[in-house]
Amino acid sequence: MGRETYWTEQPDELLHAGKKFTLAGHDTAATPGFAGDKAAGEKALADGGAILAELQSRLYAAGPTGERRSVLLVLQGMDTSGKGGIVTHVIGQMNPGGVSYYGFKAPTSEELGHDFLWRVHRRLPGAGQVGVFDRSHYEDVLIARVRQLALPEEIDRRYRAINDFERNITESGTRIVKVMLHLGKEQQKTRLLDRLDRPEKHWKFHSADVDERLLWDHYQEAYQLMIEHTSTSFAPWYVVPADHKWYARLAVQHLLIAALEALGLEWPTADYDVDIERKKLSAT
Amino acid sequence: MGRETYWTEQPDELLHAGKKFTLAGHDTAATPGFAGDKAAGEKALADGGAILAELQSRLYAAGPTGERRSVLLVLQGMDTSGKGGIVTHVIGQMNPGGVSYYGFKAPTSEELGHDFLWRVHRRLPGAGQVGVFDRSHYEDVLIARVRQLALPEEIDRRYRAINDFERNITESGTRIVKVMLHLGKEQQKTRLLDRLDRPEKHWKFHSADVDERLLWDHYQEAYQLMIEHTSTSFAPWYVVPADHKWYARLAVQHLLIAALEALGLEWPTADYDVDIERKKLSAT
Repeated sequence: MGRETYWTEQPDELLHAGKKFTLAGHDTAATPGFAGDKAAGEKALADGGAILAELQSRLYAAGPTGERRSVLLVLQGMDTSGKGGIVTHVIGQMNPGGVSYYGFKAPTSEELGHDFLWRVHRRLPGAGQVGVFDRSHYEDVLIARVRQLALPEEIDRRYRAINDFERNITESGTRIVKVMLHLGKEQQKTRLLDRLDRPEKHWKFHSADVDERLLWDHYQEAYQLMIEHTSTSFAPWYVVPADHKWYARLAVQHLLIAALEALGLEWPTADYDVDIERKKLSAT
Repeated sequence: MGRETYWTEQPDELLHAGKKFTLAGHDTAATPGFAGDKAAGEKALADGGAILAELQSRLYAAGPTGERRSVLLVLQGMDTSGKGGIVTHVIGQMNPGGVSYYGFKAPTSEELGHDFLWRVHRRLPGAGQVGVFDRSHYEDVLIARVRQLALPEEIDRRYRAINDFERNITESGTRIVKVMLHLGKEQQKTRLLDRLDRPEKHWKFHSADVDERLLWDHYQEAYQLMIEHTSTSFAPWYVVPADHKWYARLAVQHLLIAALEALGLEWPTADYDVDIERKKLSAT
């Protein structure tokens, strides 16, 4: 669901990836549920920003009043799939005071000294917050599988541990929105070449990016298995076609709007007598 | 300094509050350095947003390349002075991935078990980040003085401790921008009444706000002493007239632009051979 008017079909239904979803069967250049072009999509993104910001303000306002709920957006995708742009252009539409962003990097030696979920627990959003994980615990079943950083039985254990973890935090009030940005292989090449062609983008490129790209098919397989094992009723995966950046941003914005709207939040009511306070204040 | 074109005089010079600054002598409804009205100010804020975002991107890009510097904005001001609006409308113009925001509340029992700067150290921005303190260690010489939460000699010790702390973090690469939003007493009354008049703003009002307002003069004195003791050459205070929200936002935006510009950041240069990478990539 969502209160925007520009979708021809609800994208949360179209993008939902159940356990039988196959990545290979989905076009990375599609724009499910949106009939317009890039210009229409950019206008829709601006319009949706006001809706998103208002819903998030309600959650933020509720935080100190005993509201225990929160939202957690998990962003995964190959290099150049557009995670950073979503953070800037969608997450940036919300009040920074109510957003808890964390970008997961390669684990530190301290983090490696703990179970893989240890560092993730510490970054969960508090009540009233929208948390954003830019990469996440899913790296521990993605790069960990492809690069054989863990044994197959440990990867299997992690799928189960992730499901238990996500069920627990869902039950304690966190609504999880898991997004895989589904990028085409040729589109990645175009974007990586663009980074090399523009000096102001050189910092975004690393030699290791090409090495990772050579393992493309292995990563696709790891993503496929991740979806099969961890797309649950309480924390489903959404696979968002990401060849069009404007579409991916609009779709993720919608998923956040839908998640916030599902909380059914009203503005908190006063826990004081408005008339009495007005009189006290007028006397000052 | 700052690269915006709409200032008639540099606001960082006009707003700088040295040790001899007197709060009482400054009009809270003034708009120093800006000749336009509210509409012009809002347009300027949008224009400045692009400048701010670009400068912050350069800092963010430099973070992983060995750049050790960061910027820390400290926001202080009476209730309703507009801290939250600055976070939404100015901090929100930057990439959330490069912003480290923290709103300081009343200290927890764990925090009270440590020196007052303990919790502040933990929230300092990392290299390449813009940190934002929404309230800060200055509460420990403001409410702590007014409400007599600490002895006078302890408050005096804190001024010195703050100066040492700020000198140290400045020397290790953090550029501190300290802003006091200087609100008029009548304007506060108007804003508090507005919160009572609008149900969607009830959550922003607390009975204690009126009690704090009754101590207005004591707070002004505490702010005055704070400036006298802690406006240093390495971390000066800027006192921003805050009766016009649009002006205060524009002024803080400028102070951030000036601080980032003073870092003289270029886009990081490639630490790889662009041509070799392009060939490797083209072969995939």
